[in-house]
Amino acid sequence: MGRARQSLDQVWRGHMSNERTPESGEDRLIARYFKPLAKHPGAFALVDDAAAIEPPAGCDLVLKTDGIVGGVHFFPDDPPDTVAKKALRVNLSDLAAKGARPLGFLLTLALPKEIGDGWLAPFARGLGEDAGAFGCPLFGGDTVLTPGPVTISIAVFGAVPHGKMVRRAGAKPGDRVVVTGTIGDSALGLLFRVDPAAAERWRLTGAQRDHLAMRYLLPQPRVAIAPVLGAYASAAMDVSDGLAGDLAKLCRASGVAAEIEAGRVPLSEAARGALAKEPALIETVVTGGDDYEILATVPPDRVEALRRDSAAAGVTLTEIGKITAGQGEASFFGPDRKRLAFARLSFSHF
Amino acid sequence: MGRARQSLDQVWRGHMSNERTPESGEDRLIARYFKPLAKHPGAFALVDDAAAIEPPAGCDLVLKTDGIVGGVHFFPDDPPDTVAKKALRVNLSDLAAKGARPLGFLLTLALPKEIGDGWLAPFARGLGEDAGAFGCPLFGGDTVLTPGPVTISIAVFGAVPHGKMVRRAGAKPGDRVVVTGTIGDSALGLLFRVDPAAAERWRLTGAQRDHLAMRYLLPQPRVAIAPVLGAYASAAMDVSDGLAGDLAKLCRASGVAAEIEAGRVPLSEAARGALAKEPALIETVVTGGDDYEILATVPPDRVEALRRDSAAAGVTLTEIGKITAGQGEASFFGPDRKRLAFARLSFSHF
Repeated sequence: MGRARQSLDQVWRGHMSNERTPESGEDRLIARYFKPLAKHPGAFALVDDAAAIEPPAGCDLVLKTDGIVGGVHFFPDDPPDTVAKKALRVNLSDLAAKGARPLGFLLTLALPKEIGDGWLAPFARGLGEDAGAFGCPLFGGDTVLTPGPVTISIAVFGAVPHGKMVRRAGAKPGDRVVVTGTIGDSALGLLFRVDPAAAERWRLTGAQRDHLAMRYLLPQPRVAIAPVLGAYASAAMDVSDGLAGDLAKLCRASGVAAEIEAGRVPLSEAARGALAKEPALIETVVTGGDDYEILATVPPDRVEALRRDSAAAGVTLTEIGKITAGQGEASFFGPDRKRLAFARLSFSHF
Repeated sequence: MGRARQSLDQVWRGHMSNERTPESGEDRLIARYFKPLAKHPGAFALVDDAAAIEPPAGCDLVLKTDGIVGGVHFFPDDPPDTVAKKALRVNLSDLAAKGARPLGFLLTLALPKEIGDGWLAPFARGLGEDAGAFGCPLFGGDTVLTPGPVTISIAVFGAVPHGKMVRRAGAKPGDRVVVTGTIGDSALGLLFRVDPAAAERWRLTGAQRDHLAMRYLLPQPRVAIAPVLGAYASAAMDVSDGLAGDLAKLCRASGVAAEIEAGRVPLSEAARGALAKEPALIETVVTGGDDYEILATVPPDRVEALRRDSAAAGVTLTEIGKITAGQGEASFFGPDRKRLAFARLSFSHF
């Protein structure tokens, strides 16, 4: 992209030894920060136009893209390393839910001109740490100038045995609904970040605040259970837009309905503490989103095997309800079997 | 992406029949505008989290991403259909240069809240036209809100026979340097768009102005000659940042130098007319970029076969110079064999 590269030449002039050098500022930027992440031989150390990879034999490729925007999906003052990790992890979360193992990713990074080394160095370091930790190398990318906020788009590639991607469609009446980890932490962490007085009202300890804050900053994609889902789940997706709304999507795709006992939705100690003070927060918990847990359905006779193998992979899994005949309705019931009414199925922060 | 989806709910409220419907505004937006583009069965009509494709047997996957930003890579008032086509075509151009045929693409679309149907409908129509014309279906995407300009990131996937991606590295001393189509049209088209008086100075006809303007708005990726390059070229890349700078990159990657006769660089009739009035425009022509032609090197005994097969595929190919021993130098010589000195190897529009 000619014009943007030249803009970045100006932005990154600090990296240039000579303005007339044929190596542009962006080339140096890439060599310094991103080449170390391109460990796959097919990335050609980022000196070619494209990457070339030999797909794993007998596998389908699973393809996914998700973008995050400064001021929309993260705060401009979030630590750059967690921003980078979140950008990759929201995509890894999708791969996991589909039963796929990561192969690598492409990065498009749109940067305002005021961004400098102080932001970029920890961003690249964080991204590199996660690329290593999750076995998901950088295949290539594009760095462009933007008059808007930092915008990070990642396209991730994964592999599943041929024909075995775990779909949203596939849930059947009688299946059990399960979810990994705990739900609502991220939404509560965001709430008290926007409204610090909330943490006082909820009487959270310092450790509990840290827990909720980190759950918003740094999702924990459940990559470890991807093969377990592939073996047992009838349908799955990750919880990004809120448990209630995402479950409704899964039900619509499967042509079924779901009945959930709100009291069985797994909560962290911090979230339990907050709900004890403000029971109405259950709505934030199940509609807030940014959980990056996995929601799955499983035939009743396979629940125990799924739970056992998930636990062996280090992931706790909780049964929260069941699939019924229907047309996409996802209903949540309180302890009195009364249906909970939510203003929206996904929480709006705007 | 929970928060952005909710923002888009608000943006796209016009598409919503009921605010409490479990189907969000973004879901409707996707169903209306982008589902028709997702014709590949592995895209699951965009109702799943990810796409699954079976890679073509015996092939490597070629992976590439390029983003374009409003106000940087295109003008905010450019026709939305050409913006969409440009976003896809700059990526298809890279695939072509690598000898790869398109398989499909992922789209991340960041939209300001003031964008409405009047922009989005022609954008999706243009994207669909090109997805069909180039056999490159939409595999999936993400639509997010941005406080910045429209930002379009596309990740494209192609296939080449295993081990046969045409690299930047591979040029050898004695190889001839060839280029497709004509060079400099887009840079001149941009120049007179920014400075309308230039078109008067250059005494361009209306048809010539239209030609240059369209070359900026709508690149013509040379997908037809991808297999020809695979058969004959020793190295190739597309010309996006300017012929001089891109040739220097190819030379650095190959560990060689290049000597180009500026008078042999192929020009359109419009560009020839402009240069006749302002000979100094040769610098804009060879450093301006946004050409999306293909630059390739080829052993001397294969030049004729490459030219013949390219012509059979409908693409004109011109020999402009040769590869020599060196360390990345790309030199352009005038009619008197005097080396041309450029202020920069790639033109800066900022």
